[in-house]
Amino acid sequence: MSGLGVFRDPRSVAVVGASERPEKWGHWLARGALAGRHRRRVHLVNARGGEVLGLPCHRGLDALPEVPDLVAFAVPAAALAAGVERATALGVPGLLAITAGVPDEAALAATVAARHTTRLLGPNCLGVYDAAAELCLAWGSFTPGGLAVVSQSGQLGLEIAGAAASARIGVSRFVSVGSQLDVTAAEVLDDLVDHDATRVVALYLESFGDGERLLGTLDRLRRAGKPVLVLTVGASGAARRTALSHTGSMTSGVDVVDAACRAVGAVRVDTPAQLADTAQLLIRSGPVRGPRVAIVADSGGQAAVAADTASRLGLEVTLFPPALRDDLARRLPPQAAVANPVDLAGAGEQDLTTYAGTVAATAAAGVADAVVLSGYFGSYGRDIPAQQPAESASARELGAAAAGHGVPVVVHSMAERTLTIEELQAAGVPTYRDVEGALRAVATARRLAAPPLRRAPLPESSGVDADPSPDTDAGTGAARDPRVGPGTDVVGGGYWAARRLLDGAGVPFPRAVALPPGTTDPRPLVAGLAPPLVLKADWLEHKTEHGGVVTGLSDAAELAAAHAEMVDRLGPHRFVVEEMDRRPGVVELLVAARRDPSFGPVVVVGAGGVRAELDPDLALELGPCTPATARAMLRRLRLRPLLDGWRGAPPLDVTALAGVIVTLSRLLATRPGLAEIELNPVRVSPAGALAVDALIVPSPPHHG
Amino acid sequence: MSGLGVFRDPRSVAVVGASERPEKWGHWLARGALAGRHRRRVHLVNARGGEVLGLPCHRGLDALPEVPDLVAFAVPAAALAAGVERATALGVPGLLAITAGVPDEAALAATVAARHTTRLLGPNCLGVYDAAAELCLAWGSFTPGGLAVVSQSGQLGLEIAGAAASARIGVSRFVSVGSQLDVTAAEVLDDLVDHDATRVVALYLESFGDGERLLGTLDRLRRAGKPVLVLTVGASGAARRTALSHTGSMTSGVDVVDAACRAVGAVRVDTPAQLADTAQLLIRSGPVRGPRVAIVADSGGQAAVAADTASRLGLEVTLFPPALRDDLARRLPPQAAVANPVDLAGAGEQDLTTYAGTVAATAAAGVADAVVLSGYFGSYGRDIPAQQPAESASARELGAAAAGHGVPVVVHSMAERTLTIEELQAAGVPTYRDVEGALRAVATARRLAAPPLRRAPLPESSGVDADPSPDTDAGTGAARDPRVGPGTDVVGGGYWAARRLLDGAGVPFPRAVALPPGTTDPRPLVAGLAPPLVLKADWLEHKTEHGGVVTGLSDAAELAAAHAEMVDRLGPHRFVVEEMDRRPGVVELLVAARRDPSFGPVVVVGAGGVRAELDPDLALELGPCTPATARAMLRRLRLRPLLDGWRGAPPLDVTALAGVIVTLSRLLATRPGLAEIELNPVRVSPAGALAVDALIVPSPPHHG
Repeated sequence: MSGLGVFRDPRSVAVVGASERPEKWGHWLARGALAGRHRRRVHLVNARGGEVLGLPCHRGLDALPEVPDLVAFAVPAAALAAGVERATALGVPGLLAITAGVPDEAALAATVAARHTTRLLGPNCLGVYDAAAELCLAWGSFTPGGLAVVSQSGQLGLEIAGAAASARIGVSRFVSVGSQLDVTAAEVLDDLVDHDATRVVALYLESFGDGERLLGTLDRLRRAGKPVLVLTVGASGAARRTALSHTGSMTSGVDVVDAACRAVGAVRVDTPAQLADTAQLLIRSGPVRGPRVAIVADSGGQAAVAADTASRLGLEVTLFPPALRDDLARRLPPQAAVANPVDLAGAGEQDLTTYAGTVAATAAAGVADAVVLSGYFGSYGRDIPAQQPAESASARELGAAAAGHGVPVVVHSMAERTLTIEELQAAGVPTYRDVEGALRAVATARRLAAPPLRRAPLPESSGVDADPSPDTDAGTGAARDPRVGPGTDVVGGGYWAARRLLDGAGVPFPRAVALPPGTTDPRPLVAGLAPPLVLKADWLEHKTEHGGVVTGLSDAAELAAAHAEMVDRLGPHRFVVEEMDRRPGVVELLVAARRDPSFGPVVVVGAGGVRAELDPDLALELGPCTPATARAMLRRLRLRPLLDGWRGAPPLDVTALAGVIVTLSRLLATRPGLAEIELNPVRVSPAGALAVDALIVPSPPHHG
Repeated sequence: MSGLGVFRDPRSVAVVGASERPEKWGHWLARGALAGRHRRRVHLVNARGGEVLGLPCHRGLDALPEVPDLVAFAVPAAALAAGVERATALGVPGLLAITAGVPDEAALAATVAARHTTRLLGPNCLGVYDAAAELCLAWGSFTPGGLAVVSQSGQLGLEIAGAAASARIGVSRFVSVGSQLDVTAAEVLDDLVDHDATRVVALYLESFGDGERLLGTLDRLRRAGKPVLVLTVGASGAARRTALSHTGSMTSGVDVVDAACRAVGAVRVDTPAQLADTAQLLIRSGPVRGPRVAIVADSGGQAAVAADTASRLGLEVTLFPPALRDDLARRLPPQAAVANPVDLAGAGEQDLTTYAGTVAATAAAGVADAVVLSGYFGSYGRDIPAQQPAESASARELGAAAAGHGVPVVVHSMAERTLTIEELQAAGVPTYRDVEGALRAVATARRLAAPPLRRAPLPESSGVDADPSPDTDAGTGAARDPRVGPGTDVVGGGYWAARRLLDGAGVPFPRAVALPPGTTDPRPLVAGLAPPLVLKADWLEHKTEHGGVVTGLSDAAELAAAHAEMVDRLGPHRFVVEEMDRRPGVVELLVAARRDPSFGPVVVVGAGGVRAELDPDLALELGPCTPATARAMLRRLRLRPLLDGWRGAPPLDVTALAGVIVTLSRLLATRPGLAEIELNPVRVSPAGALAVDALIVPSPPHHG
């Protein structure tokens, strides 16, 4: 037995701190361990000896008849270090430490690290469970099933497990990773790739540590056909307050987590309930391949509430084609609605086979990626025992329709726990108590079906790029400042240096020259530029707000006057003169890249300008990104219609804009000296994209 | 007994169509009626005679020993008309028609209308229930409680009643109003104002009919201390498809329903589950007076999920003041978080009184409008029977803390149905299975606490306004077109006519003159205007797109040239010359008013421009509105920071802008000839607001 296998199906287990008192963790661990006694040897340890749950306790690890595979500690914080040291010395391969509030976690980690054969799970965790191995070292009881739960917060993990039990999908494995002093969440996830019982994985993390490692693991799980549902926190400042005090580690931005999920085909959820609802759908009926949902309801009211809810969740309630409408009209009474949503108008109640017939016809038509039945179905057998056989038959047919057409059929039922509900679930039909839960599960599962937005491979020669061409068409070649060598990571040196670097990497700028400090007559220097011109104070970050920009200078004389005035006012520093971009039909966007502590380079594109600051319209992905991902980012923006050609205007040059996104994402990925790049705005016209301001923030010394 | 009392507590009931077969409505009506036999006389009618549920059936209404107060029909559609006619002839005061698919509803309505003493509820309805009167004429069973359900869709009403039963708040009255041929939802609601058992009202409507009447009723319910939760549909096109086929009536826009709710202090919800969750909070613990929520959780993960969810729902998880943080720090272990959200870090499990102590201290501090406890509480007594007394005591203390400090305490528990959960509910603490349900209930209840945005009273002399002053400062007096008499409802006559009407009502415009058709030399006419000038084609609706606007004309000569060119290109029609608004620091908004078929005048304000069309930023209220309501609308806009003074800019003239909103709302309310007015844009500066385009749409003839 090697690696993490001892946390999965140990041959022998010892519980240190076993207790007879049910309010003690040592009681629940002992009780859980003993429940698996037909599969493995179980030893109980208590310093005071005595008997727990009918089994005599050993007084210490040394007194055990063997070195167990796994030792679980439920001891006071002050006693944990000694116990771990002893177990490590004995060569126990697996240690599980429930204990919270350990005074010196670093020392504990060092103890374990010194002995390469011992692995420690925890401390500050709520235990492990494996359904197939009948291993339960945790509080309470678990319902066996298909959802694996890996959680940095034990309580939240238990809440997810409880929700899975309520949804009757159960848990295949539960691992509370706690402080991750040794065994990490990524390792535990890796150990699920070949875990047969696991169909879907629930992951709760507050900090993401080695993002690269985690992404590899999530990708392997996806390829193994085990979708991962990720719960994290930090969307609000209040959440970050707790997360910091809870784990002592930086919480990754939720937007970055979303991007990481998209890169490996995982999906983020907001709450344990949403997670369990989605897991139920995935486990019972498989993937949702697109956004189109068909709604079948008992009444117009329920049909309309479902349709509104679906739309709010980003699903599409598309009009049925005439052939299907005609088919449904033949099956249903005249007052029924058949266009989607379908209102059965009481026909289901009249004849219970109508439910299955309508849903099956809809699923067969191939016009929906999921069919949602909302209403009274599930209650008839309870109300009228004589109708139970008919309702059961209809339930089985609903399952058969889903399986036969590869389209999930999802039931929102006013009934809670009836025989029919159980039969639906057994037939592969997920059931929900409220229609929003049902539709949100469909919407979340649908996001999982999107192909992963994988990062681009890094270029062969990573590190510093080759020298930029000395003759780029953007015209920075017109007058290069000799003090900024091409291709060097000189950053934070003002607009001109940023321009040089970005221009060299392929970001288009207007033609420009630099006026060196102390320039008295700029006119000869700008002879190669076509007016109107823009004069910019090179060193100012917020140029406009500090009076460091003059636009629309119509000739060299006007430029010279503006330059003289600015030197007078701001000092004899470096200025940049640029050709003014006056192309018609331009939209201004911002493109930026920065470095996330866990996931590395990320790239952002969005609306520029004041309104966008009040109400951001942004898309973020991991870098380096491909042109296809860059275009996918642009499609997500609310301003997308402007790019496509608004009201008859020609479409904008999305290829050029995507090129800028790709370039920035790649620059940050290949230049560790850069912490942040921002182009704001990038002016995009039907022919090309031009950056007209740029800011580069160098990495702090310890990142370089 | 008069009015709707017969549907509430009739002295005698007859069920026509009584049946022994449990799949028949006639069976459930008979069964329900008989359950109230100790309170009233019950007669069963079946054309075939026989016995139902042990009672012999009469063969017709004529055979009854008395004229009953209420007759319930569960008969085929074709038989309903005859039954209603007979009952009407007998003088039965109340008729309840379940029957759907009635071929000629108009004839049925006429039959009832002819006899003023008979009222009809339905048809196409699912019955009535009154808990206090033990009247149940509906399918299934109801749990008595505090929520009244009035529903245009019977099934949706039953779903709400079922959700209320699950939440253990129960139903005080259920009325499915069906087709509302005679008795309307507004009447049924009116009948709840003095219904003692009703604490909260659930209303589902698809069409709002006489909005004025309904608003009055909702206002009376609010004053009677019975909050109304409104569910409606039509937010998506798909929902409207069904609503239309279901009721044959226009669905009001959801935005208008929201405005109607704000006008009378009601609140709209999205789903039956949200409705029941909110009703539970209101019935158990009373109002939520503000947006501040305190979160207390077992673990950092649950605390952070709750905080993120609260923020997403618009609640505020504000940092606790130092005194409270210190108090909590003294009560909790060092690894706990005490700033909000509170992470008990396992302290609750160690000592169950910690839950009540922490929540009570938080409630007492007066820093939150609701306290949400999230986690394991509710499960201890189930896991460890010896801990039940301690958990029960803590549950009672939680209730006492809520009552004592007038702050709702809301519990999200991982336990489903335990003794402690029941005790919490009994103690006035609403409980929820998922944290989002809990927080959404808080957020929804909080909206109810906002003071109603009541409509302004109509001016004394309603109808057509008095003549506009002939000497307004906006300068339209510079050259009035004699063909547009002041104050007349001449609309659709182009920009000049619209300007005249609006100017007369007090909407500020730039100074302008009209150039009559056939003008050859405009120069003398514009002598009184200060350049730069704008030339506009009076009759074009989308002037810019049709080349009907020229701006920046710097003198009369330039104007004359532009006029000649435009006449040449567009024809010798009327043109308007306006002074060009060049004030700095201007924000452009749109202000519009239109007429809703149910609720009458509504007024809209929002962001102007292209981005706003892609991603609307609008506020809508019922008209006529007060200046206070207009300012409240502006506060809701996402662009609000621009109005307040963005980045050190001076604040804009919100008073002038509010004045334009009020004026438009009042114009539409007093002038039935107007269907729609749109000012786009209104340019707002730090000093004043100027409309620079206006469109007026006249009412179609049948509205005038």
